[in-house]
Amino acid sequence: MKNIGFIGLGNMGFEMIQNINKSKYNILGYDIKKKIYENLDALNIKTTDSIIKIFETCDVIITMLPDGKAVKKVWSENLKYASEKSIIIDCSTIDIETTNYIHELAKKFNLLSLDAPVSGGVNGAKSASLTFMVGGDETTYNLILPIFSFMGSKSIYCGKEGSGQAVKICNNLILGISMIGVGEAINLANELNLDLKKLYEVTSTSSASCWAINKYFPVSGIGPVTPADNNFMAGFSTDLMKKDLSLAINATTNDENNLKFGRKAYEKYSKMSDKGLGSKDFSEVVKNL
Amino acid sequence: MKNIGFIGLGNMGFEMIQNINKSKYNILGYDIKKKIYENLDALNIKTTDSIIKIFETCDVIITMLPDGKAVKKVWSENLKYASEKSIIIDCSTIDIETTNYIHELAKKFNLLSLDAPVSGGVNGAKSASLTFMVGGDETTYNLILPIFSFMGSKSIYCGKEGSGQAVKICNNLILGISMIGVGEAINLANELNLDLKKLYEVTSTSSASCWAINKYFPVSGIGPVTPADNNFMAGFSTDLMKKDLSLAINATTNDENNLKFGRKAYEKYSKMSDKGLGSKDFSEVVKNL
Repeated sequence: MKNIGFIGLGNMGFEMIQNINKSKYNILGYDIKKKIYENLDALNIKTTDSIIKIFETCDVIITMLPDGKAVKKVWSENLKYASEKSIIIDCSTIDIETTNYIHELAKKFNLLSLDAPVSGGVNGAKSASLTFMVGGDETTYNLILPIFSFMGSKSIYCGKEGSGQAVKICNNLILGISMIGVGEAINLANELNLDLKKLYEVTSTSSASCWAINKYFPVSGIGPVTPADNNFMAGFSTDLMKKDLSLAINATTNDENNLKFGRKAYEKYSKMSDKGLGSKDFSEVVKNL
Repeated sequence: MKNIGFIGLGNMGFEMIQNINKSKYNILGYDIKKKIYENLDALNIKTTDSIIKIFETCDVIITMLPDGKAVKKVWSENLKYASEKSIIIDCSTIDIETTNYIHELAKKFNLLSLDAPVSGGVNGAKSASLTFMVGGDETTYNLILPIFSFMGSKSIYCGKEGSGQAVKICNNLILGISMIGVGEAINLANELNLDLKKLYEVTSTSSASCWAINKYFPVSGIGPVTPADNNFMAGFSTDLMKKDLSLAINATTNDENNLKFGRKAYEKYSKMSDKGLGSKDFSEVVKNL
């Protein structure tokens, strides 16, 4: 494994490819929008206008795309060009159905495949501190570990095909709901004239403690520095949280009794998005309950 | 301050009075149910049949009672017997309205008062590792600190009268909601055939991490030992969670748009209680969504 292809050079991909470029591997980038190529040229990172060339020449191909539709298109149209023993890795956060579909497709072409969505956002991508949640064959995972280590600080093998996406969706379902719980408590505390510094002090060290409080307390001037201290500039955008909750809802059976809180949370973040707050940080939900 | 009266010797009070008894203070206990006196006699802990005697002779009087109604009755009927400079402390978890009422009452009688609900449950009471969340005058709080230290491992001054109750209610509102979020994620993970050990491994160390996962993961055999490992024997009972959520709902204005998730959570725990699971641990909610 020497040649790595990277498809999708948006906010995340643009940072991730730079970190791989610092490694021993040869890297070749591709995006449908060619404007980004100028910035990569300036960094001496190779790009190509031919996505087929990526599949024909690379041993490992990473896709980092905005949604399942884009991933399905890239994999469907191009796996036939990949040489045997190539490993294709999707780092996008997408729906379970498409994830299962692309793994099946890879098998048809005798290719190895992993789903490896990340957490950590653009800042994590920039500082190479992403966490990879990986599904697929464990031997393949072990082969790819060194590559993950250039882009992230942690990777966790989550099980068979689709498990990486499943873990990420479950994780963000919990986060989306718990941030709303924290928001309701903050509103109640305000109604009761409680000092929010005291609310933070108690809840961050007791049975209410959670990442949404301890690492991301959504009130300016209290707790660690968070998007709340910067007028809720994302961070992790409301639209991305909305997307991840829709992935959870779409992954469950149609029974509307499933994920009742997840569905309600999706409604809350959707309303924010409808108000024009989609690009603001998801934690601003505490002001929109 | 030498003489401490303790009113309410139920599951919690019975443990708490034993820990004060190990201190330098003289302790005198009272409960409407006299059966418990036998056990206290055996431990050489003094009790009295006269609640008036408690108020007449004690410098510090602690109430630990099941609800606001009981607290209101005890304080209303007996504050007149207390001598000036006595400090009256309510450690019960009760509604904000009653808490404000008893503080006002204490002021009328020129008595000092604190609200100091606890977290940690019966096990915390037994091992003297409770956390006290305290509202009232800060000077009074500082006077009482040594007494709290015999019953708990931590106390936090939360602000003016009622702030202790307010913090506790907000804390448990978050916990009640986040446990349901964790439950929905576990159900989704099961639908997706995800290994729950992997779900625990990822979520306990990332943005979903919370006390409900890290300290109380509600699946047998995964994570720390919790009530899930003991067929959901409480622990913190569903009925107590239901009570605390009702305190939150009653504390907010009548607007039904407030605490939408809190109200939904209350419904979930109520349904469990209606099924006869009220005395089981609240975390069993993950199996009842």
